[in-house]
Amino acid sequence: LAQIPSAEPQNTFSFHPIGWLESCFKEKFGIPRQPGLVKEAWAVLHLPKTEAMREALHGLDSFSHLWLIFIFDRCYEKPWSPRVRPPRLGGDRSMGVFASRAPFRPNPLGMSVVEYKGLDSDDEHWLLKLGGCDLVDGTPILDIKPYLPYVDGVVGASEGWTSEAWPELQVSFSEQALTTIHSIGDDGMRLQALISSCLRQDPRPAYKRGKAEVQEYGFKLEQWNIKFIVRESLATVLELELASAS
Amino acid sequence: LAQIPSAEPQNTFSFHPIGWLESCFKEKFGIPRQPGLVKEAWAVLHLPKTEAMREALHGLDSFSHLWLIFIFDRCYEKPWSPRVRPPRLGGDRSMGVFASRAPFRPNPLGMSVVEYKGLDSDDEHWLLKLGGCDLVDGTPILDIKPYLPYVDGVVGASEGWTSEAWPELQVSFSEQALTTIHSIGDDGMRLQALISSCLRQDPRPAYKRGKAEVQEYGFKLEQWNIKFIVRESLATVLELELASAS
Repeated sequence: LAQIPSAEPQNTFSFHPIGWLESCFKEKFGIPRQPGLVKEAWAVLHLPKTEAMREALHGLDSFSHLWLIFIFDRCYEKPWSPRVRPPRLGGDRSMGVFASRAPFRPNPLGMSVVEYKGLDSDDEHWLLKLGGCDLVDGTPILDIKPYLPYVDGVVGASEGWTSEAWPELQVSFSEQALTTIHSIGDDGMRLQALISSCLRQDPRPAYKRGKAEVQEYGFKLEQWNIKFIVRESLATVLELELASAS
Repeated sequence: LAQIPSAEPQNTFSFHPIGWLESCFKEKFGIPRQPGLVKEAWAVLHLPKTEAMREALHGLDSFSHLWLIFIFDRCYEKPWSPRVRPPRLGGDRSMGVFASRAPFRPNPLGMSVVEYKGLDSDDEHWLLKLGGCDLVDGTPILDIKPYLPYVDGVVGASEGWTSEAWPELQVSFSEQALTTIHSIGDDGMRLQALISSCLRQDPRPAYKRGKAEVQEYGFKLEQWNIKFIVRESLATVLELELASAS
């Protein structure tokens, strides 16, 4: 084993993002905990409009799903935790960080499988349209790879501690919220479905679940502040407010 | 979209490997082209024997499969190719690098799903035993994540250009090769199965397939130089020689 170097800090590898992600999720709260859970969650990967980049994307449209390798940049150069408390375990049982997908890792890298929805462009960017995302607006992307079912779809892999069920919520909208949605016009239906899918996943911190106390929550989705409460297993959207420009 | 920075080179993110991989594959030639294809391919991830690392691994044993995120370190700081010629396409058709898993990428990061075979230790390292690997000895590892079937096993994902079949080879052994294998004793059977599985995948460069010319190839596996020829769809192991220490 003499040829294997020791894990010393001077062994540094540097990477530059290939592009940045625009996403419907404008803050961490409210983001589904894994990709694919909210089909309506859209994102657009902005890549520099170079000829090399266009060539590098050739053939992508033969795939329905892609991997993104990204940086949890809000965790970059912050301390990592050897143990984490996954929401799925109710927040009161801990796991090793390598047995979880939590963001505070020794190297804060993430991988998400997303739906590929086509390629577009603006004056300066190739725009890769994506669905089913679980990434916050502005996430730096390091790599795109095709999802290969014969490699990535492991038959018979065990579920580990993720076999415990994640209880979904029912979702309803107040009259006030529905009035706002209807006032938007044609796009209101899409927005309503997106909000419903996000709340169905129960974005509250795990330790709040099963508590009798009813608290008002808010999260930013696209240009909206969504306010909601949860009573037992029912989430109710109280209102949608236009968010102030950030 | 004002909050999304442009993809400028001063945006640099640095990472330190958590550990290094010891693998049965001592050189690039002969490595299966994806993980899981050669079940007998073993690897051991060496991690520093700290208490934090032990904690970080807690719960890993509830999973059968893990992701490794690693650096294609032999491609690091080398030019990348916008187009690649995947072996599966016979080496004469090209694809964009983002539609492939090829190593020469803008950021030479790889991800492989491997079998988890248990945790061991020596004086200085935690030793994560892995199976079904497709990584070369000495690969720097950045992250370990659990394989989550409900997230990573995408039902109905398209195969893209990988739907084209990869023809496997038959494998035979010369008397000379068998004599060497039998002389090893109990471990000979395991070695023979490993060699067979590797050659079944046809490690030759794609442009050599279907050529009438018969050429002798060699590759390093563990401490052995394996010499073989391919005639039509039959690979024959000619001999095994002890490799000189590198």
